[in-house]
Amino acid sequence: MSSTKERLVSASAELLRQQGYAATGVKQIVSAAQAPFGSMYHHFPGGKEQLAAEAVRSSGALYGLLVGAVLDPAPDLVTGVREFYRLAGVNLQDSGWADACPIATVALEVSSTSEPLREACAEVFEGWLQEAIPRFTRHGIAPERARQLAIALVCQLEGAFVLCRAARTTEALGVAGELMAGEVQRALTPGAH
Amino acid sequence: MSSTKERLVSASAELLRQQGYAATGVKQIVSAAQAPFGSMYHHFPGGKEQLAAEAVRSSGALYGLLVGAVLDPAPDLVTGVREFYRLAGVNLQDSGWADACPIATVALEVSSTSEPLREACAEVFEGWLQEAIPRFTRHGIAPERARQLAIALVCQLEGAFVLCRAARTTEALGVAGELMAGEVQRALTPGAH
Repeated sequence: MSSTKERLVSASAELLRQQGYAATGVKQIVSAAQAPFGSMYHHFPGGKEQLAAEAVRSSGALYGLLVGAVLDPAPDLVTGVREFYRLAGVNLQDSGWADACPIATVALEVSSTSEPLREACAEVFEGWLQEAIPRFTRHGIAPERARQLAIALVCQLEGAFVLCRAARTTEALGVAGELMAGEVQRALTPGAH
Repeated sequence: MSSTKERLVSASAELLRQQGYAATGVKQIVSAAQAPFGSMYHHFPGGKEQLAAEAVRSSGALYGLLVGAVLDPAPDLVTGVREFYRLAGVNLQDSGWADACPIATVALEVSSTSEPLREACAEVFEGWLQEAIPRFTRHGIAPERARQLAIALVCQLEGAFVLCRAARTTEALGVAGELMAGEVQRALTPGAH
């Protein structure tokens, strides 16, 4: 990727995360990226929709890496899951309740109006599940149960982000962390649930 | 409320639910409400922001009633919780994956850019918690645990809506229903968790 193209993608990702797709104009992206206006349509002939899909995919892939980055160094899986939500809360609060998920706002806005963007969001979420699932199966959790845990992990995070950003507290992320830690603990100790 | 005012509010709520705040223009609201353009600023001198806050509050209150409407007639609380997510999935699928939560999209879009709208969203979510909490405490669940369950119930719903709308499947709502049914079952049988 050229440096201008990279800047366009990362500026878009940032704007999508903070205010969503519809509120983000091409002029704003170009200005935030400090890119010449013409470079936008040179790199993205499909315009804002194509650029946003690229931003969703690239920031989605980056965020997907956080699953392993948090879970893998943890002393155990349950601690890692709890830490996952705690860190999400710290980051959210430190950003003034602005920076949560770069994908969810777009997913909700465009799921009924842009197939290319909806598909990009769906691919990102499925990618996150594929990051989480092996972290569960390698501890002996059956694949089907591991997929359910991964889905619950992501749902609980996305839902908690909605409540936390609106309420400006980390309460929901704390609840989510305890709930998912309990779920994973039970999945690791068959017979206990 | 005058009939024109009501139509402006309900048309706004519908547009917010399907495409969010930024994508919804005043002209589109007025046209969907079949209202004269001037009526908009007559009823809502604060413009789109004031109208959207009213739409968030009124549709939020309406959706809050669904908690009792689903949980109260159920033969037991666990069945009711499972049914809550099943019905959400049926409604979502029947609407062509368009109609999920009227609040979440707006909450994510405006939490960093409009204090009046953020506050309206936060009030709605807190109202939903207050609908759910007594449904748990009346079964003997302690208030603090009841609040955690209520938060998890809403987070899991909002997060599952994000994934389901993007993926166009009800998989995440199914997982959410089983997870929350299990959580409530354990809360009802102290010592089992």
